[in-house]
Amino acid sequence: MKNQITSALSDFFFEYETPRQVLVRNKRVGLVCRFIQMGVLVYIIGWVFIYEKGYQSTDTAVSSVFTKMKGVGYTNVSGRETVWDVADYVFPSQGDSSFVVMTNFIITEGQKMGKCPELTGKCTSNDDCTEGSYKRTGHGHMTGVCVNTTKTCEVLAWCPVENDTIIPKPPLLTSAENYTLFIKNSVTFPLFDVTRSNLVEGIDGAYLKKCLHHPKNDPLCPIFKLGDIVKHSGFSFEDLAQEGGAIGIVIDWTCNFDVDVKHCKPQYNFHGLYGNKDSTNASLGYNFRYAKHYMENNEAKRTLLKVFGIRFDIIVQSLARKFDIIPTLTAIGSGVGIFGVATVVCDLVLLYLLPKRKFYKNMKFKYTDTHTQDPDSEAGSTETEQK
Amino acid sequence: MKNQITSALSDFFFEYETPRQVLVRNKRVGLVCRFIQMGVLVYIIGWVFIYEKGYQSTDTAVSSVFTKMKGVGYTNVSGRETVWDVADYVFPSQGDSSFVVMTNFIITEGQKMGKCPELTGKCTSNDDCTEGSYKRTGHGHMTGVCVNTTKTCEVLAWCPVENDTIIPKPPLLTSAENYTLFIKNSVTFPLFDVTRSNLVEGIDGAYLKKCLHHPKNDPLCPIFKLGDIVKHSGFSFEDLAQEGGAIGIVIDWTCNFDVDVKHCKPQYNFHGLYGNKDSTNASLGYNFRYAKHYMENNEAKRTLLKVFGIRFDIIVQSLARKFDIIPTLTAIGSGVGIFGVATVVCDLVLLYLLPKRKFYKNMKFKYTDTHTQDPDSEAGSTETEQK
Amino acid sequence: MKNQITSALSDFFFEYETPRQVLVRNKRVGLVCRFIQMGVLVYIIGWVFIYEKGYQSTDTAVSSVFTKMKGVGYTNVSGRETVWDVADYVFPSQGDSSFVVMTNFIITEGQKMGKCPELTGKCTSNDDCTEGSYKRTGHGHMTGVCVNTTKTCEVLAWCPVENDTIIPKPPLLTSAENYTLFIKNSVTFPLFDVTRSNLVEGIDGAYLKKCLHHPKNDPLCPIFKLGDIVKHSGFSFEDLAQEGGAIGIVIDWTCNFDVDVKHCKPQYNFHGLYGNKDSTNASLGYNFRYAKHYMENNEAKRTLLKVFGIRFDIIVQSLARKFDIIPTLTAIGSGVGIFGVATVVCDLVLLYLLPKRKFYKNMKFKYTDTHTQDPDSEAGSTETEQK
Repeated sequence: MKNQITSALSDFFFEYETPRQVLVRNKRVGLVCRFIQMGVLVYIIGWVFIYEKGYQSTDTAVSSVFTKMKGVGYTNVSGRETVWDVADYVFPSQGDSSFVVMTNFIITEGQKMGKCPELTGKCTSNDDCTEGSYKRTGHGHMTGVCVNTTKTCEVLAWCPVENDTIIPKPPLLTSAENYTLFIKNSVTFPLFDVTRSNLVEGIDGAYLKKCLHHPKNDPLCPIFKLGDIVKHSGFSFEDLAQEGGAIGIVIDWTCNFDVDVKHCKPQYNFHGLYGNKDSTNASLGYNFRYAKHYMENNEAKRTLLKVFGIRFDIIVQSLARKFDIIPTLTAIGSGVGIFGVATVVCDLVLLYLLPKRKFYKNMKFKYTDTHTQDPDSEAGSTETEQK
Repeated sequence: MKNQITSALSDFFFEYETPRQVLVRNKRVGLVCRFIQMGVLVYIIGWVFIYEKGYQSTDTAVSSVFTKMKGVGYTNVSGRETVWDVADYVFPSQGDSSFVVMTNFIITEGQKMGKCPELTGKCTSNDDCTEGSYKRTGHGHMTGVCVNTTKTCEVLAWCPVENDTIIPKPPLLTSAENYTLFIKNSVTFPLFDVTRSNLVEGIDGAYLKKCLHHPKNDPLCPIFKLGDIVKHSGFSFEDLAQEGGAIGIVIDWTCNFDVDVKHCKPQYNFHGLYGNKDSTNASLGYNFRYAKHYMENNEAKRTLLKVFGIRFDIIVQSLARKFDIIPTLTAIGSGVGIFGVATVVCDLVLLYLLPKRKFYKNMKFKYTDTHTQDPDSEAGSTETEQK
Repeated sequence: MKNQITSALSDFFFEYETPRQVLVRNKRVGLVCRFIQMGVLVYIIGWVFIYEKGYQSTDTAVSSVFTKMKGVGYTNVSGRETVWDVADYVFPSQGDSSFVVMTNFIITEGQKMGKCPELTGKCTSNDDCTEGSYKRTGHGHMTGVCVNTTKTCEVLAWCPVENDTIIPKPPLLTSAENYTLFIKNSVTFPLFDVTRSNLVEGIDGAYLKKCLHHPKNDPLCPIFKLGDIVKHSGFSFEDLAQEGGAIGIVIDWTCNFDVDVKHCKPQYNFHGLYGNKDSTNASLGYNFRYAKHYMENNEAKRTLLKVFGIRFDIIVQSLARKFDIIPTLTAIGSGVGIFGVATVVCDLVLLYLLPKRKFYKNMKFKYTDTHTQDPDSEAGSTETEQK
């Protein structure tokens, strides 16, 4: 018994099976098949490996973004000069990856809680103003009174109510065009354990002090002029500043870690979000309301700002690649499978399309019995007949 | 030499190898193997290709979200009527994808920096109140004094300290149920270079003015009533408004770009986050503190709000698919591999399980020598014996 | 005709093709090939299946994070004692996944709109101060006057302008080290339809009241001491607090849903962002400006804070795995393909390297004609010659 196992094992280890093959010497079939095989080979090597880099595994990054604006705005509304610095025009102030730069505003000063007539929505009698109800676009809580002088409902609200029918034109803070934006971005590819910052090699304090991003001359400088960003995303700054808009700043990290990690550098692209350029779009502009509260003569008051601004979303796109044995062998393995398909196709040609197909059939196949064998076989000497 | 290469090359191109095969005419083996092969074929075509769409490559989107609330809240606390508009009840104000709508609050007015007793944590003597130390849940910096009247430690803090033991019930801003939320969302699939907005074809300004999202009747209207969102996520508005909670609004972009891009439309789903419905959960509610600072009689004061609210997280899920040659051929290639496995299984049946296994073995194999050949082989005429 | 089809079909279903093979009994080739095949098998089973879990499909989660700080800070600047609570030192206040904890600040009180000289940028005459222009690092809008006393340009700005040349050392809010951070995080794996919260089984209200995260003793407690986070990320708290910095809190959900879902637990890691540890880095620190507005004697004033702080980014990394038939069969299928490659390699050895290669060639191949056959073939009795 033990001998048998040993012998079976030695048989197994010292033997090797290889498929027996027919070598068909036929120019037509040979050429067709070789070309099919070449095609598969070119596809595997050229497309899967070289073009699509199928020998690499991929990973996307987790990223962290911090922004900082610089610049001072100036408005002169009916003789009142005001300066707007970064604490006034950036929302939120702490440097998030998504923020709004105010470019235009409607200010309603000295609002306090009280009763005053609405601006819109005509009423003819008190019956039109149900007490305690609201309108979807109203400013407050109806008191049930239709004010005679304005012919609108009286509301309990922050009074006087905001009048936002006229948006200042040109936008009040056109100087926003000259503000600069500094972006710090770090990305980590967890699979490859690589961390990169957009302050890559060669960007030091001295360079940061004087550089300004330019797609050709300074593509790696992380300091951007707002006007440039808007221009590169295809808008006119004045149009966008008027009613606000949204711009995406895409930081693209497409990295190949088979080469030195220092070649992994960000690319900056800018494009409009929400399709503001498209005139058929349903909802244009970007605005929100913001209040500064204060106490005056023991009364709670507020200054309401309807802020029109450009919202910047910093979007980090990342795709890193590195050689990995698994996708490589999977690509090879499935490539071999496709080779098998090529063989099947050639066999079909050989066995069903060629004039000498019966001859080839007999060459290729050996039958375990003879009753269905083709009588007019071209090659008479098959092994089954020799029995 | 040159001739030899030419001849080798022409041999290579005009030749074609095809494996020689035994055609076993045996009903049992035939049926078993054909069914295994059919199973593999059905799996590859039916499952991998049709059901799992293995011929497509996939991509997830980068997305940008902007929100806007509308509506007015009204409170009447001990006769003091107040109206709350969007600048008062949304945090942050600039329309982020994650924001809080205030539904209840505890207000502490007129706080100023000073010394006052804590509300909780009994002390019996000054020794219990170490100067300069803090308690994890305390409001300030202990002065080292145990106040006689309250029997609590005196602290340097914003005084009077907030008393948040009683949460108003019913919630003060139940009118929040009627607020509406407008969501603008744009997604970009970088691999397929497609950008979509949730204001899809057919949603124009006129429709936006009057529509309200309804899962069946208006599934594409991006304006939502807060009460509806809460209801669809399985909560009661009043319960959630009382102590706050968190709701996820999932915008699902599952797109097939093999059909027209206009069929790529968002689906909106709502579900609770942090498992507030589950009573065993350790940490319920959602609240944060927020202060409005002001000056009164040259003193810095503040109004502290403990805000209970519903936090909405807009979560964009995206998966786009498009035909791609690589996954297609990889699927075919590995399918062919599985076919190979089927052949191996059938061979095992043929060579080890059938009664005529020795006959089939001799048909299938040719041996390079004869010494280990089976003496009682059923088919005596192997090629090696003919030598 | 119908008969023919029936017969062809029955032939097809009752037949089975299996490749004919040569069984080469050669120790060298046998050993080499068996070892290559064993290698492939070990690779497929050991590496692809067991190590890389190639039988599972993977999914990443959508996640939602909510944070809450606790703790009180205390400063004593020139005798003026101040207490800073959570409404004062966290930006933004509503508990986002990315927030800043103030650790140091430069305060400029009582600023109002007016004209005052800049702090830096010497001028010699009014010509150096072009009216209406700005400097990138300036505070306001130049009036065109060079102020004699300071020899700097006069600007329209919030006056007096901020003097941020001296950063307080040691940082004013070193007590921030003792603040605690509570993180609520829920993740949803859409592909597997599993939702998990970081308040996993066994974390109840009682445990949350007293626990503090410790990497070894309390790895699942979601309450962190700020000082511990900074220490674990490799910084000294005092260094970081001085000029600010950024720390990533990574919540790692690596889950295997082939085992019970309750084993899917988060891991917390901490690391510095923006490479602050690296002294060669171009841009250190983290700060932003923040203003509190108020009215005093009918004048709009503000208190400007230059906030130095630690920015915490909570980054959720997730990777869930579960058995899936498609990756399993793809792995098997491409593994069979690799087996095919092994066979090709062995055939090359057999047919081109062995001394008896011509004999093996004749065993393996059958030719459709004879004119190019090797005359000195060792095995003379090929089937074609027998014709």
